[in-house]
Amino acid sequence: MALEIIRSIREMQSIADNLRFDKKRIGVVPTMGYLHDGHASLIQAASDISDSVIVTLFVNPKQFAAHEDLSRYPRDFDKDCKIAEQAGAHFLFAPSDEEMYPNGFATSISISGITQKFEGFFRPSHFDGVATVVTKLLLATKPHIAVFGQKDYQQTLVIKRLVADLNLDVEVYIKPTIRETEGLAMSSRNVYLSETERIQSLVISQAVTDAYTAVESGERNREQLNTILKTTLLSIEHIEIEYAVTANAETLEEPDIFTETESIVFLIAVKIGSTRLIDNAVWNPRQTN
Amino acid sequence: MALEIIRSIREMQSIADNLRFDKKRIGVVPTMGYLHDGHASLIQAASDISDSVIVTLFVNPKQFAAHEDLSRYPRDFDKDCKIAEQAGAHFLFAPSDEEMYPNGFATSISISGITQKFEGFFRPSHFDGVATVVTKLLLATKPHIAVFGQKDYQQTLVIKRLVADLNLDVEVYIKPTIRETEGLAMSSRNVYLSETERIQSLVISQAVTDAYTAVESGERNREQLNTILKTTLLSIEHIEIEYAVTANAETLEEPDIFTETESIVFLIAVKIGSTRLIDNAVWNPRQTN
Repeated sequence: MALEIIRSIREMQSIADNLRFDKKRIGVVPTMGYLHDGHASLIQAASDISDSVIVTLFVNPKQFAAHEDLSRYPRDFDKDCKIAEQAGAHFLFAPSDEEMYPNGFATSISISGITQKFEGFFRPSHFDGVATVVTKLLLATKPHIAVFGQKDYQQTLVIKRLVADLNLDVEVYIKPTIRETEGLAMSSRNVYLSETERIQSLVISQAVTDAYTAVESGERNREQLNTILKTTLLSIEHIEIEYAVTANAETLEEPDIFTETESIVFLIAVKIGSTRLIDNAVWNPRQTN
Repeated sequence: MALEIIRSIREMQSIADNLRFDKKRIGVVPTMGYLHDGHASLIQAASDISDSVIVTLFVNPKQFAAHEDLSRYPRDFDKDCKIAEQAGAHFLFAPSDEEMYPNGFATSISISGITQKFEGFFRPSHFDGVATVVTKLLLATKPHIAVFGQKDYQQTLVIKRLVADLNLDVEVYIKPTIRETEGLAMSSRNVYLSETERIQSLVISQAVTDAYTAVESGERNREQLNTILKTTLLSIEHIEIEYAVTANAETLEEPDIFTETESIVFLIAVKIGSTRLIDNAVWNPRQTN
């Protein structure tokens, strides 16, 4: 079955209503396009657990700040259609800016607490933009399940909070980050990197791996773990660290010493040249019994 | 069929899903309880245009400010059940505070523009509370249509904006204010009024009627219309006017002179004794063709 491209919210809702009448389970994968193997893995995951897969493609202006890379964000619609279809998508919902934010649009959704630090600190209003667009996309596609990538770790916490708080009747699945063979987390923004920068950028995944290994070996001192992250990152020149932090993986709280039973996340955002890259890893305590 | 009382969001959503599988049209009437003939008229209206009517009953703490009357807001659950059932409701969705706002709840929905003045100025954060709870109630009950009363006029504009902006797939109906025989707009808060205050409060509906009559006679000067509102209100003693204003009925803009083709709303909020009362009337230009 060929991929069906939908531009209108009303039409998307009407298709979703009909799928639901037919007792089909709808899975949605929200994306900003320029799809890569990371997106493909999310689409395949959605395909495994639902009957009809909708990929949304919308480069959401509300989650970019004024100084950010909205206008030069990479786009390749034809390639996106191919990747989505090959990975198992049935519908590509690709509304225009005007369809999503018509004249007079005035609504904003905010999550307090977990949005204030790290990504939220460096990208003010970013998570309001994410929460607002994700709500709109979920209400346009009416899915039973929604699949997001762990690469945007803090975003996954925001979305789980949002879905619970608003009673959005959707099961949220978070799937692991897909990496290049050398370890670099896949990202649409990797296309900005020069060959030299691409090699330099390997310190990012190396840093979270080093911190992860330290926790495995018993390290629970937050400052020590942060030092490991930063030492590895600063092994290259010309890197700007926005944050390189260790936190409770559920609450993002930052205790001095983590307990033995706490899940821990390492979160990194850096600029290499003019390209902003993020990565993370979650360490979970061993299940004992 | 007896009224079914639902306390759980999950159960409400499951019932709504089943009604939708059966191709029933769901109508919802959100209320804060202490139902009166005004609510009954909304429930009857919902009943006329849908197959299954859900009345929601939730006294939403998030739309009361700290100094307001949340704790003494009137409640009579048994009477509410009777009125809802007699008016044609099939379900009463009455979640607890903990069900709606469990520990860790962190999400807030804001509408800019129309929420800033009048009711929003005197009740800061009120419309955030309204927008958040209405979204939650609509997502819990999954209706095809939702019916609101015109008495909360500014709220009806907020809800229409909210529903459009978030792609909530719900048709919003606004139904006229129901009044006591003397003209006082029905309100759960009327129970606070002493016999004397109840008589005094008739100036409120009189004021909007006077301004309406003036527009009918051709008056389009906003200050003149506001003077009419205030003069009638101040014909009694011991009234505190929060606002008594004339505005464009769609945008709430306040031009010096209204055009001949503009819809106009008169909006009043006053305190009589310690009771806060609101009322409004909308004047629409004659259809010419």
